[in-house]
Amino acid sequence: MIINNLKDKKIILASQSPRRHHLLKSIGVEFDILSRQETDEGFPEDMNVYEVPVFLARKKAKTYENFIAGSTILITADTIVHVNNKILNKPTDYDDAVKMLKTLSGNMHTVITGVCITTKNKQKCFNAETHVYFDVLDDDEIHYYIDKFKPFDKAGAYGIQEWIGYIGIKKIEGSYFNVMGLPVQKLYEELKLL
Amino acid sequence: MIINNLKDKKIILASQSPRRHHLLKSIGVEFDILSRQETDEGFPEDMNVYEVPVFLARKKAKTYENFIAGSTILITADTIVHVNNKILNKPTDYDDAVKMLKTLSGNMHTVITGVCITTKNKQKCFNAETHVYFDVLDDDEIHYYIDKFKPFDKAGAYGIQEWIGYIGIKKIEGSYFNVMGLPVQKLYEELKLL
Repeated sequence: MIINNLKDKKIILASQSPRRHHLLKSIGVEFDILSRQETDEGFPEDMNVYEVPVFLARKKAKTYENFIAGSTILITADTIVHVNNKILNKPTDYDDAVKMLKTLSGNMHTVITGVCITTKNKQKCFNAETHVYFDVLDDDEIHYYIDKFKPFDKAGAYGIQEWIGYIGIKKIEGSYFNVMGLPVQKLYEELKLL
Repeated sequence: MIINNLKDKKIILASQSPRRHHLLKSIGVEFDILSRQETDEGFPEDMNVYEVPVFLARKKAKTYENFIAGSTILITADTIVHVNNKILNKPTDYDDAVKMLKTLSGNMHTVITGVCITTKNKQKCFNAETHVYFDVLDDDEIHYYIDKFKPFDKAGAYGIQEWIGYIGIKKIEGSYFNVMGLPVQKLYEELKLL
């Protein structure tokens, strides 16, 4: 519905994230999921942090180029958590998750998602940023959250749509859904313009 | 869990809103729902708009005062949508919903929720504000949304957690959950201090 120019297109979302599947579905777009390939998530060390997510989304698109037929629209995305001039990836283990949440506690961090929309003939990439302000979290809260929600598949070791997002986040500036992993309003706008 | 001082208390949420039930549940609090009485939602005409939600939350608490035993904690809340110096209530009919969404389209509005926590001996009330920035919505989008989601029970004629929130909201400043009807982070903080 609504996006008329997508009617004869085949949309592919190349992501394993159930949050991204949910978000794309919520804007009313029909799509297939493809997430067979592992992409090397490396990037040049001297790269500006704001260029990293689009760089990685573009790299992901590259690994799927053989799947792009004439009517295919491929969507790839990469989300990073940036705090104190460092990028937080997915936590490697329990202690790493504790360390990350202690870094976020009482602090502002920025979630940046890069998105690429790729067709046979063109590619449009963009960034979305959201600032997230965590309240001070105490040790009990951090351990309770990690024990119960096991956020090992999430950059920065938290999901804004989980308990810790409800009790711990004072405010955000930007798109909420971007923090979940896909800036759907901007994506919808770009798909309409395609 | 987590909020130890609530262990022997009986929490009552006096609200019919399924969003508020969901939000309070999400912070891990156990509670009963009570929403028998209708509260007159009038307020003094010359009242500052930022005082209205707490005024109404306090008024709601007043109507439930007979239910407050020694160990009871009563939570009442009222949410308003404020735009162009006007308060938007629930839409009266289809045309009113269209009119409201046209007012919000391409515009910033403020969602203010007033919350009161009332016990036998004391009452703590507070406000939370979130600024919401809508993209320009076209007529097709407005009609599609109202037809499909029938937002007649929602102040301002929209739910941020519904399709229109995903495709139409560019950014927010403040708490996302406040826009859904209950600023749960602030409420959690206040309950801990109780």
